[in-house]
Amino acid sequence: MLVDFKRPTSHIKYLSSFTSDEWIKLALSNPIDILIDHAHCERKAAGVAIQLMFRYPSEPNLAEVLSPIAREELEHFEKILYFLKDLGHSLESLKPPPYGAELSKNIRKEEPNRMLDSFLIAGLIEARSHERLSLLALNYEDKSFKSLYESLLESEARHFGVYWKLAQTKFSKDQTFKRLEELSEIESAILAETFILPRVHS
Amino acid sequence: MLVDFKRPTSHIKYLSSFTSDEWIKLALSNPIDILIDHAHCERKAAGVAIQLMFRYPSEPNLAEVLSPIAREELEHFEKILYFLKDLGHSLESLKPPPYGAELSKNIRKEEPNRMLDSFLIAGLIEARSHERLSLLALNYEDKSFKSLYESLLESEARHFGVYWKLAQTKFSKDQTFKRLEELSEIESAILAETFILPRVHS
Repeated sequence: MLVDFKRPTSHIKYLSSFTSDEWIKLALSNPIDILIDHAHCERKAAGVAIQLMFRYPSEPNLAEVLSPIAREELEHFEKILYFLKDLGHSLESLKPPPYGAELSKNIRKEEPNRMLDSFLIAGLIEARSHERLSLLALNYEDKSFKSLYESLLESEARHFGVYWKLAQTKFSKDQTFKRLEELSEIESAILAETFILPRVHS
Repeated sequence: MLVDFKRPTSHIKYLSSFTSDEWIKLALSNPIDILIDHAHCERKAAGVAIQLMFRYPSEPNLAEVLSPIAREELEHFEKILYFLKDLGHSLESLKPPPYGAELSKNIRKEEPNRMLDSFLIAGLIEARSHERLSLLALNYEDKSFKSLYESLLESEARHFGVYWKLAQTKFSKDQTFKRLEELSEIESAILAETFILPRVHS
């Protein structure tokens, strides 16, 4: 049977590929695994923001935006945790897809490139999460899942905006656009290698 | 001139020593350094809670209490950050006292001792912060500093309670009390070695 999946009418233009029908199919048939994985993603996203605050503890106007991001990721983490508990599930360990680790390998080691790459990769992950959560919100039939993802996805786009603005504030326009383009191609290439388990970033 | 410092009428009974007059004197004469250091302490406390969530990602009923602690520490971090900015100061780097690193050396490496020690040491740091912030709130004359510390200190005591309850929930009563007593003695011994710069835990 052919299924036409709903697609969002708007998206973050910096992603260089759209998510495949295969991923949507996999995600729709494995709602609990996707949800547990997404809880871990929110925890990890909080960890990324905090890690940057530790790496650059006195960088002007950095903690002011990263700390609220970390708090919001933790709020979402807790929201999903209780949603899972209400369904009788717990936050079990799941083998993560290679996505995060592979992307991080592209963070250059020397400053200030390390900072630029860290902002852009954190932003790209938020952008991809926004796209995928939008697909889940649009295509899940279960009302509670649908509205959970609707409630989460807006902030993923906003967080992309924060990281993108950080990059643009601290680096030249040419430098940020050129590097974002490179990293965006890499991000799409990583996702093009199928990871067979149902994960937000498989 | 002899000064009688005000002392809180209640304290967390598990601390095995009271803060010296010398520390109070040092703190009162260096309000900005103490405040910047305390901002870093709130950031680090959020980091500790998140780190434990990463180390034990699927431990039952752990993330449920650690995630709200991390959020609250970040809220306080932001509050101090803006308080400092209003005074024309920024979050500069400060050489930390040896306190945190020395305490952490006492975390045993093998599980489940590692978990118990981590909870107890995180709790002891919160308890000591509560005692010292109480001293600042009582003895600062400046109203804005006084009320800032008053607004922060209650949660330090509550966080001690959370870590203490975590330890008691997951370990035997004998084991937790015995180990807390040992670590509390070590904590006092670390503070007895004077660190000459004005810090919350010098």
